[in-house]
Amino acid sequence: MITTPIGIAVVGYGYWGPNVARNIVERPELRLMGCCERDPARAQSFRDRHHDVPLEADFDELLLDPRIQAVAIATPPRTHYDLARRALEAGKHVLVEKPLATTEAHARELIEIAERVDRVLMPGHTFVYSPPVNKVRDLIQAGELGDVYFVTSSRMNLGLYQADGVISDLAPHDLSILLYWLDAPVTHVAAAGQSIFQRGVPETAFLTLTFQGGATANVQISWLAPRKMRQMVVVGSKRMVQYEDTSSDESVRVYDRGLDVSMIEAPATFGEYRLTYRSGDIVMPRIEAAEPLGLELADFAHAIRTDAEPRSSSRLGLEIVRALEAAHLSMERLGDPIELAASGGFDRQLAAPA
Amino acid sequence: MITTPIGIAVVGYGYWGPNVARNIVERPELRLMGCCERDPARAQSFRDRHHDVPLEADFDELLLDPRIQAVAIATPPRTHYDLARRALEAGKHVLVEKPLATTEAHARELIEIAERVDRVLMPGHTFVYSPPVNKVRDLIQAGELGDVYFVTSSRMNLGLYQADGVISDLAPHDLSILLYWLDAPVTHVAAAGQSIFQRGVPETAFLTLTFQGGATANVQISWLAPRKMRQMVVVGSKRMVQYEDTSSDESVRVYDRGLDVSMIEAPATFGEYRLTYRSGDIVMPRIEAAEPLGLELADFAHAIRTDAEPRSSSRLGLEIVRALEAAHLSMERLGDPIELAASGGFDRQLAAPA
Amino acid sequence: MITTPIGIAVVGYGYWGPNVARNIVERPELRLMGCCERDPARAQSFRDRHHDVPLEADFDELLLDPRIQAVAIATPPRTHYDLARRALEAGKHVLVEKPLATTEAHARELIEIAERVDRVLMPGHTFVYSPPVNKVRDLIQAGELGDVYFVTSSRMNLGLYQADGVISDLAPHDLSILLYWLDAPVTHVAAAGQSIFQRGVPETAFLTLTFQGGATANVQISWLAPRKMRQMVVVGSKRMVQYEDTSSDESVRVYDRGLDVSMIEAPATFGEYRLTYRSGDIVMPRIEAAEPLGLELADFAHAIRTDAEPRSSSRLGLEIVRALEAAHLSMERLGDPIELAASGGFDRQLAAPA
Amino acid sequence: MITTPIGIAVVGYGYWGPNVARNIVERPELRLMGCCERDPARAQSFRDRHHDVPLEADFDELLLDPRIQAVAIATPPRTHYDLARRALEAGKHVLVEKPLATTEAHARELIEIAERVDRVLMPGHTFVYSPPVNKVRDLIQAGELGDVYFVTSSRMNLGLYQADGVISDLAPHDLSILLYWLDAPVTHVAAAGQSIFQRGVPETAFLTLTFQGGATANVQISWLAPRKMRQMVVVGSKRMVQYEDTSSDESVRVYDRGLDVSMIEAPATFGEYRLTYRSGDIVMPRIEAAEPLGLELADFAHAIRTDAEPRSSSRLGLEIVRALEAAHLSMERLGDPIELAASGGFDRQLAAPA
Repeated sequence: MITTPIGIAVVGYGYWGPNVARNIVERPELRLMGCCERDPARAQSFRDRHHDVPLEADFDELLLDPRIQAVAIATPPRTHYDLARRALEAGKHVLVEKPLATTEAHARELIEIAERVDRVLMPGHTFVYSPPVNKVRDLIQAGELGDVYFVTSSRMNLGLYQADGVISDLAPHDLSILLYWLDAPVTHVAAAGQSIFQRGVPETAFLTLTFQGGATANVQISWLAPRKMRQMVVVGSKRMVQYEDTSSDESVRVYDRGLDVSMIEAPATFGEYRLTYRSGDIVMPRIEAAEPLGLELADFAHAIRTDAEPRSSSRLGLEIVRALEAAHLSMERLGDPIELAASGGFDRQLAAPA
Repeated sequence: MITTPIGIAVVGYGYWGPNVARNIVERPELRLMGCCERDPARAQSFRDRHHDVPLEADFDELLLDPRIQAVAIATPPRTHYDLARRALEAGKHVLVEKPLATTEAHARELIEIAERVDRVLMPGHTFVYSPPVNKVRDLIQAGELGDVYFVTSSRMNLGLYQADGVISDLAPHDLSILLYWLDAPVTHVAAAGQSIFQRGVPETAFLTLTFQGGATANVQISWLAPRKMRQMVVVGSKRMVQYEDTSSDESVRVYDRGLDVSMIEAPATFGEYRLTYRSGDIVMPRIEAAEPLGLELADFAHAIRTDAEPRSSSRLGLEIVRALEAAHLSMERLGDPIELAASGGFDRQLAAPA
Repeated sequence: MITTPIGIAVVGYGYWGPNVARNIVERPELRLMGCCERDPARAQSFRDRHHDVPLEADFDELLLDPRIQAVAIATPPRTHYDLARRALEAGKHVLVEKPLATTEAHARELIEIAERVDRVLMPGHTFVYSPPVNKVRDLIQAGELGDVYFVTSSRMNLGLYQADGVISDLAPHDLSILLYWLDAPVTHVAAAGQSIFQRGVPETAFLTLTFQGGATANVQISWLAPRKMRQMVVVGSKRMVQYEDTSSDESVRVYDRGLDVSMIEAPATFGEYRLTYRSGDIVMPRIEAAEPLGLELADFAHAIRTDAEPRSSSRLGLEIVRALEAAHLSMERLGDPIELAASGGFDRQLAAPA
Repeated sequence: MITTPIGIAVVGYGYWGPNVARNIVERPELRLMGCCERDPARAQSFRDRHHDVPLEADFDELLLDPRIQAVAIATPPRTHYDLARRALEAGKHVLVEKPLATTEAHARELIEIAERVDRVLMPGHTFVYSPPVNKVRDLIQAGELGDVYFVTSSRMNLGLYQADGVISDLAPHDLSILLYWLDAPVTHVAAAGQSIFQRGVPETAFLTLTFQGGATANVQISWLAPRKMRQMVVVGSKRMVQYEDTSSDESVRVYDRGLDVSMIEAPATFGEYRLTYRSGDIVMPRIEAAEPLGLELADFAHAIRTDAEPRSSSRLGLEIVRALEAAHLSMERLGDPIELAASGGFDRQLAAPA
């Protein structure tokens, strides 16, 4: 069976848009049919790479093109709601960069519109398509880790300054991964932020999260670290997993618990003391090499074609927006934990296998 | 000048005592003159290694021996106050394992007694003698990191169950290192604990600390991790340092900030995207290979001989006891940050160079 | 100044061809104008990605197209001579995958033809465009390593079986890097091969090389290793460099010599013994993230436009073919070292900066 | 059953002697009863640590002491034969540092004397007691690696200058490990040496070895590397093992072969190209933390008590001396491979499990 590729346009050709466009070209399910970018330098950069694809400065004009069935919105967060709404109402399927919207109300409204017009609305939580993230999820789902007690995360880089602060920028990644792994909604969020350069715009934050069922998470995020760190540790009753996104090959390490705790004896020498720091074998499973954004675009195309819910669903996007709002509220209250009401929509089907 | 070695006895030959005894034997400044241990199996284990050193089950008997000028107490935390008090009152110099005591009141009382009887009272915060910890401190003191913004720490292992919980067991290490590095007292502590196996005895905890001057720290500690982790990251305005205690050789990594943030451009390909995750050079300074406990014992001997304050001072020990009490209080209050009153004693001389 | 892109065709769309085609598309200096591939499945694979580019099964037909000014030949080694010769004689510039040819005579003949018809002939020694390889070369050229004493290399993977054996497949990489770094011709080659699966087709080989000036190299290559290894160590009088191609970020490590050898003392404990294994600091310089094949294609375009010799020059290609022939001869003689005559062409300008 | 410890004396208290003495003290089977050292500074260093143990400058005087049943000789290689012979003839059991002797004739003579006087003669090939070396041997013996095709080794450090050259100093380690792992005698040795500082005393050498049964090995050794390297790779038909002695925890890595070679496909993007460099899972087995020298001394005591052949047997020592002689001969002949005659003594019982 041969199917015609879905016509898609990229909206915004700044930091992330070029990656989206490049991946669209590589995917047989999609055909790049347009780009919307007002900035002349960025527009030229698009033309240099995609000679034959029409470029349009006006978003509404772009939406008039009937060959464009879907748009991939890669613009700043505060524009997401408005652009996604207009695209949906023009009958387009929408892939919008994370976060889905900046408020719960806007996120809920987009979801309602998408249902009404029967179009796919999908936030771009790329990490749920990352092969190592999925390997860890597989291990959890298969019971290999036992009960998950807690997850720690350090996600730092030398960030581009954004007016919304580091929580809006980086925490969506942790939240999407945590929700995907733990498959349970957030019940409590506490957040402490630190602002060095501009009052009220934290560049560093520490979050403590509790999930339904009792698992907890601690997340360290910062824009001030010259070295990118993307390390997460999942500790379960049977095994522990360390996941480092920056390591190209050994991104997932599974640590066996090994011997019984009661058998641990004191080391007799300093050499032994230094050496005895794990109790069992370590396994680094082979991880398929694939670009997450390519898989995300394939899932978007699949959702358009089959009406299946994409792995990065709008409900996942909504849950993340809600947790971000709670984190900001906790930070304003100097770290007081905030309890989240049940979301009504988030349940065990959240993270259905793609 | 030849000086007679200081006669010293080890009190407690359980987990840590054998390390202390072994290091005493290696140090020319000290002579192992006794051991106090009531458990027959442990007593036998001592005899097997130290044939000619007297063993005594009764602590008061041991204190009567005039050749014993100092004791190294390596017993459980709840016994520290009582044993240290009796030893000081018998005129002995006292090295007591961390924590100095379990309450601020007891710690202050021990300090007063030590001053009154003019004997050295030194808590065994071994990490302040660790060569990589000192390398990081040197970098901070020399201004190589610029202003320190924040520190993150992950300290996990497969812990021996202790009734006091993981905060009492592991947080003293982080607190001693943080106070030694930042050279400023703790002003706020927030702590969230998780108890899986016994209510009220957390095996995992997340702490957020603020220090005078504005630096913050986030500490992840747990007894449930099959792999020992001892990783700290210090982010400053000029450079970032990563310190991993478990790595034998490359324990300290200094990351240059490299290029100006404003110059960061979007990566054009996935390959570049994966690769571009640091902005400057990395330097791993050579670290002297030395066992921290040996250096700690040398500092103890030096303090006895010269009346100089040891690097791991009783004031440092007191500050740590106060922060631990605040952390426990915050945890009881479900994470509410606790403000610490000025300690009166902790000031810029806290961490005088040894 | 706007210049028209150079029209180029890819010859062979098997293992390497798709990488070449993809990189041509990304380069503004080049325009992909054709592909020659007879295998139907490969041809279809080309069409799926490059909808608008003509595909031609017949090489001579392709050469008739005047818009095609250059060809990139990515076919098996034994076809290189014939295809490159016909393309040059048709007036095309030629980029041919390594090795330039399978015999010295053929390589010399191609070079003569290229000179006669005044076209660029460039072997695709991709590693001389690798950013970490160039960082090491820069360090050597700047005298940072002092006199280079020797280089070791381990280059192993789970290889595709090729009738020419592992030396023809993998040693060109080592030879290109070594010649580029040491900037001196090979004077002696000894090679020992091991054939497990088919007599006379070694899957593993060990080479020892001597270069003019006295530097030596030992190269371990194999197709039988389930883990890709690409590690080289350069030991100089001042510093040592370790280069690992597989590591995405920390690919180059520079080891300072540190203390004077005479100062090395015996370690006193096992802990120290384990720890004392380097004498100075380690620096991991930041390496630009760029795909070598893209830079190679840019250099090819530059050579066509300006008549400058490309970094991966035909003289470099010839020197490598000569060393490969000597290695095969030594292997036949069970490891006897073979002396290479002066090549006449290879001199200090071999590796002129691009 | 209580047994009296064996009285033992250390001969030579230079680089290695202090390690031997310290380990003797830690072992219940042995009692340190003397030290022979003529150098006053070294003698004082011994006294500082071992107050009550007699020190003797004269070797023959030492041999007169009947409480001394065994000697551990830690002097330069050229003295081994003479000191070992005199000790054996005085009725002492002898542990002598590697190499057993500097010539095959001397090694054979020592073995004959030991048999005649019925005393243990054991060369100190410490690596055969190393836990990671034994883990690799266990994997080989259990067939986990399949047929062993070849082994590569890089063993470099910033060496102390020794008149015998780097082959005598470092190659015994590789030879002991290779013989222990492969359990087959060496049939051919080719060696190329490089002398920078003094003609005829190579600081760097490359060895290629063939073993009975067809396995080969390539060994890179040098004194000129500022970073200690001790890396070996064993490639078998089923799995590959990487062993790094300097890494404290992850010293052994087992690479699964994973997929069938025929299934390897070309990577489609540079990102994948960088990532696809192993075919199966990696396992890092937990390795017991123990100091090899302690285990070696325990085996020496066991051999004395039970007459069992020690793992580091005199036959192993002889085989190593023979291979070293062949390596030196090959080096003199500029790399010509040397064939070793069957040793007569080395057979499948070489490496009997201890």
